[in-house]
Amino acid sequence: MTDRDLSLIDPVVVIGSGLLGASVGMRLTSLGVAVQLRDAVHAHARVAATLGAGSLVPLAGAEVKVVVVAVPPRALASVVAEALEEYPHAVVTDVGSVKGTILQELRSRSIPTERYVGAHPMAGSHKSGPVTSRADLFEGRTWVVTPHQNADPDLVERVAVLGEVCGARVLQWDADDHDAAVARVSHLPHLMSVLMAEHLVDTPTGDLELAGQGLRDVTRIAGGDPYLWEQILVGNRAALVPELRTVRERLDTLITLLDAGDRAGVRDRLVSGNAGTRAIPGKHGAPSQDFAELVVEIPDTPGALAKLFADIDGAGINIEDVTISHDQTRQIGYLSVAVQRGEVDRLADLMRTAGWTLGA
Amino acid sequence: MTDRDLSLIDPVVVIGSGLLGASVGMRLTSLGVAVQLRDAVHAHARVAATLGAGSLVPLAGAEVKVVVVAVPPRALASVVAEALEEYPHAVVTDVGSVKGTILQELRSRSIPTERYVGAHPMAGSHKSGPVTSRADLFEGRTWVVTPHQNADPDLVERVAVLGEVCGARVLQWDADDHDAAVARVSHLPHLMSVLMAEHLVDTPTGDLELAGQGLRDVTRIAGGDPYLWEQILVGNRAALVPELRTVRERLDTLITLLDAGDRAGVRDRLVSGNAGTRAIPGKHGAPSQDFAELVVEIPDTPGALAKLFADIDGAGINIEDVTISHDQTRQIGYLSVAVQRGEVDRLADLMRTAGWTLGA
Repeated sequence: MTDRDLSLIDPVVVIGSGLLGASVGMRLTSLGVAVQLRDAVHAHARVAATLGAGSLVPLAGAEVKVVVVAVPPRALASVVAEALEEYPHAVVTDVGSVKGTILQELRSRSIPTERYVGAHPMAGSHKSGPVTSRADLFEGRTWVVTPHQNADPDLVERVAVLGEVCGARVLQWDADDHDAAVARVSHLPHLMSVLMAEHLVDTPTGDLELAGQGLRDVTRIAGGDPYLWEQILVGNRAALVPELRTVRERLDTLITLLDAGDRAGVRDRLVSGNAGTRAIPGKHGAPSQDFAELVVEIPDTPGALAKLFADIDGAGINIEDVTISHDQTRQIGYLSVAVQRGEVDRLADLMRTAGWTLGA
Repeated sequence: MTDRDLSLIDPVVVIGSGLLGASVGMRLTSLGVAVQLRDAVHAHARVAATLGAGSLVPLAGAEVKVVVVAVPPRALASVVAEALEEYPHAVVTDVGSVKGTILQELRSRSIPTERYVGAHPMAGSHKSGPVTSRADLFEGRTWVVTPHQNADPDLVERVAVLGEVCGARVLQWDADDHDAAVARVSHLPHLMSVLMAEHLVDTPTGDLELAGQGLRDVTRIAGGDPYLWEQILVGNRAALVPELRTVRERLDTLITLLDAGDRAGVRDRLVSGNAGTRAIPGKHGAPSQDFAELVVEIPDTPGALAKLFADIDGAGINIEDVTISHDQTRQIGYLSVAVQRGEVDRLADLMRTAGWTLGA
């Protein structure tokens, strides 16, 4: 980030001083950018200001370069429309999870959209409100910018700079493609979690004593704010409903397979599930888990295995999985060690140097 | 645990030296109990022995007091049957996740079941095999013992002692009730996770770049071993299929509500989901999240909020949630602090002592 970048966006108005708005304000304030905070509930803006997210003093409307609209989803389009009028030289962006509907509403109201550039900073928390905000909330997170065809490229650039100075990885997506993608990777999992969680309301209390970490993981996001999520899900229903219908068809088949005790059929579905989990990239868009295996012979001598583990530990390489296999003919055991693909050659060298025999 | 407890169960044979069997062996060995390890793949037993889970030297069959069968689900009943014959004075228990089917199979083969007492230690890992075993695997976990009507009470006691000395919380359940409960709180969530994960196989790779922690949480358990889970799910299908049918009906309604853009209807479902997540007890069977709110007035003076947070932090009480509210009439702000119900009085005292005004 250079001073030129910051001058492109300075000063900024943040409308909506909740978690996202106040976090943007904190970050920009810490960088020296002038930020005016607004909120329909003035106490929220006041609290955000106290926490260092900006000032309550109004900026001159004509001087404002960026307006960040961070209000609840249903209010986004009308607040964006007001901001476009009130700040005549600013780019108006927002933080909503669904992008197509805002643009549709602006167009249906014949509002000029050259200065509107939608965005979706993918950060959040199960908590809300200004007191949970943090200047580093967006650090390393994804900030999707969804410019439409007639958006002014210089203004699109301002929104990209906003995301970058907040520490996010900025991606540009078409609004409809974005909405289809979040339907699949965010809104559908939310509903699967809700379907499981609501089932627990009718589950005998005693049964829940046997709940383990798996149930907690599957249902965690169902604990999200129903008022916020209703707006997101209904807002994106055009993209979401077809995904749900596909899941329903798959559920039907699964019920049939299980009911028939079709072991191979059930196993195929579980294998597909395994493949699906591997398709998810690592954090921050890193490549998905790509492991390589190193196979080491285990000599049949006392303490050999303990020494082998100690040597692997000593290599300082993160071990992702370990399995034992056995060659019946040669009466010899093998240890397979899975590590990140990029690390396997280094581990192989270290193991050879330590005197181990590597397998095929 | 007393020496008398240990003498009730010493010596022990563990059949199946994978994660669960080897972990039981490690714990018992560390307590001084004699353990013989067996495995269909001798290398597994040998590795488990190397890791301190027991000995490969056969015990005299007539002296063995407890046999722990820790083989894959489909092999459980036949290995239990063999063990009942081979160890004529031992109680034979197992570690399977489905209990009714084992008993049914033993009965259908006219095998006397007085000395069989099923159990389900609820511990595991996405990893498997003896090298991932640990003496403390069961510490604080639940170990369900499922004695049937004609089981010998002294032998049931031995199995309970086994779970206790492994550090687990031992519960006694009827086998069919157990199977119905795990269908709801373990097997159904597993399938919901699989349904979401397999959907990702057909999802465009680019979309997955927008995946966040929510998707990872929902799909984590779908990464489990398909061969193990096929046996569990098909084994418990009588209890599981009706649960799946209920979920399918709820999914149908949800699709209808969303398709119609029925905001109130969708919100009701999300509120039910919230209630479901709250119904899950805390770890180790602790009561579910039971928070109480303390409301503190925020004076309208510079630095007041920062001092308030510092004082709350200083109280050393874990803050579960914080929200801001505002009284429009009195132009005064309130901070609501959610803490464990048992802590709220102490926090109130500390805040009053520090000079804060508490709200209603």
